[in-house]
Amino acid sequence: MCNQEGLPVFSDVLDASKRLNGVARKTPLLESDLLNQRIGGRLLIKAEPLQRTGSFKFRGAYNAISRVIERDGKRPVVAFSSGNHAQGVALAAKLLGVPATIVMPSDAPAIKRNNTAAYGADVRLMDRYGESREEIGADIAKTTGAALIKPYDDPNIIAGQGTAGLELAEQAQMMGASLDAVLICCGGGGLTAGSTLALRESHRELPIYAVEPEGYDDTKQSLDAGERRSVTIGVPTLCDALLAPTPGVLTFAINKTLNVQGLVVTDKEALAAMAIAFETLKLVLEPGGAVSLAAVLSGRVETKGRTLAVIASGGNVDPAVFEKALAQTAI
Amino acid sequence: MCNQEGLPVFSDVLDASKRLNGVARKTPLLESDLLNQRIGGRLLIKAEPLQRTGSFKFRGAYNAISRVIERDGKRPVVAFSSGNHAQGVALAAKLLGVPATIVMPSDAPAIKRNNTAAYGADVRLMDRYGESREEIGADIAKTTGAALIKPYDDPNIIAGQGTAGLELAEQAQMMGASLDAVLICCGGGGLTAGSTLALRESHRELPIYAVEPEGYDDTKQSLDAGERRSVTIGVPTLCDALLAPTPGVLTFAINKTLNVQGLVVTDKEALAAMAIAFETLKLVLEPGGAVSLAAVLSGRVETKGRTLAVIASGGNVDPAVFEKALAQTAI
Repeated sequence: MCNQEGLPVFSDVLDASKRLNGVARKTPLLESDLLNQRIGGRLLIKAEPLQRTGSFKFRGAYNAISRVIERDGKRPVVAFSSGNHAQGVALAAKLLGVPATIVMPSDAPAIKRNNTAAYGADVRLMDRYGESREEIGADIAKTTGAALIKPYDDPNIIAGQGTAGLELAEQAQMMGASLDAVLICCGGGGLTAGSTLALRESHRELPIYAVEPEGYDDTKQSLDAGERRSVTIGVPTLCDALLAPTPGVLTFAINKTLNVQGLVVTDKEALAAMAIAFETLKLVLEPGGAVSLAAVLSGRVETKGRTLAVIASGGNVDPAVFEKALAQTAI
Repeated sequence: MCNQEGLPVFSDVLDASKRLNGVARKTPLLESDLLNQRIGGRLLIKAEPLQRTGSFKFRGAYNAISRVIERDGKRPVVAFSSGNHAQGVALAAKLLGVPATIVMPSDAPAIKRNNTAAYGADVRLMDRYGESREEIGADIAKTTGAALIKPYDDPNIIAGQGTAGLELAEQAQMMGASLDAVLICCGGGGLTAGSTLALRESHRELPIYAVEPEGYDDTKQSLDAGERRSVTIGVPTLCDALLAPTPGVLTFAINKTLNVQGLVVTDKEALAAMAIAFETLKLVLEPGGAVSLAAVLSGRVETKGRTLAVIASGGNVDPAVFEKALAQTAI
């Protein structure tokens, strides 16, 4: 488990995959004839909105909580999250039989707040700008004895999220697709780091991109600089799932070492990608879950005659935001 | 091939399955924890919007056209369809290298008209109420020597559509689910007949329901009467995919013999089901593709403690209609 620097390695992703077998869903790798035609290449979409709880976050949450229980026995868990990690932890805790408290910003999408509560978690709302969710989470952990389940900077979370990349590599091979590039939605970097660990095992030279929304390109800035950089939060974006202001220590170390590159898209491009996913894939994407597809569709990478894969990370979006995306459709 | 009455049999579905292997997609059988919680049972959703062309229709079209070519050599094909069969035939013809002419009503959804053309078919628009698409289709077949690919009343179409039911039975078994009822969206009855052929092989007594929209319950009326009955077309409905006024001769014979029962839902219930699929499954459904789910959610069958499966047949819906559905959401 983990290498000398405390970073998870490929075998940790394999272990997570065994642990998630029969619990997490093996999400399909979708493809659309019209989308391929549109880009003049082949595009494969790993559909994490079809994962339990509507995003990839269930993978890491279940892996991490099951390991906490294995080590400590059953104990409560606590997490802070704008919504997808919240739902992943809530459902994983329910399935594993431990109580969960989730600290969420009060401006998180209604669908994320409601669903987190529906999975049986105790939801505590906080002011995103006036309070520190880390402090509130740490305080709850201290007073209740709950284990803190971090959103991304934890080896078991990273290894769990990496199972998405592991499945992608296997499924692409089954489909006879030789990948020319992979693009991954990036917030704190857990999905990118874990999936890159999995992909690098079979694809040493494959270009892998972490895609972020404008104003929250801390991973791109950090990868360009070779060290962790922070962005100033507060810029409005519809990509509520990708608001991390600084890459994680572990996630950044992995992404840097394994040659991940950064790309940035606008909210408008994310909305347009949601509309195209609606039209051609019949898949519901949230803005933050659409940025990888948006990077392809807005020409950030070469598509002609190439085979690309994107991980679409989640689909928990309120109707009003989805309607904004539909207003972007050409028809 | 076919029994003494000219009806397809189970082995025809197996043959179609071999022919579609590696061409059609094996669509996932989805499940949502929140949806299960909501109905107090287990609900499995066969996601045909994720099939190539966004509906199950590609299955039958490809099976039928490939058999025409096998018999006659390459020749043009012609079809009449409000949109999903149109797209299925257009893509199948393209993949098999034969030209396709599609006769469509001018009020078909824009997404269906545009996509049919995008797959390379020659689209001929007609007035739904003033002209006979059957006559136009027959005329084109006569003048061009094209083979007419019927939308449902053809053994190869029925057998092709049946592969959806075949996969459903296999996938449910893999998931350890013992089915208490299956509900299928029904227009002319091809998907229902084919899938029932497949399901009856392993489930002799399973209740199977053909679900239709209000005003177009010709299959229910016919099954209740024991003979084919027609409805008067012209009643407005959003379920453009399910407007057949009379069950097919072959499809009705199969559905009657294999004890299919009829259920009816309203447009409002179909829209509500689309909203719930958006919220919990992250799947885009068109109104006609949502009627089977609508029948479950509106209490037409008992759900408590039971395991149900629905075939959600398609997801080709214009944004304006999808927005109507989103307006139904509780959040």
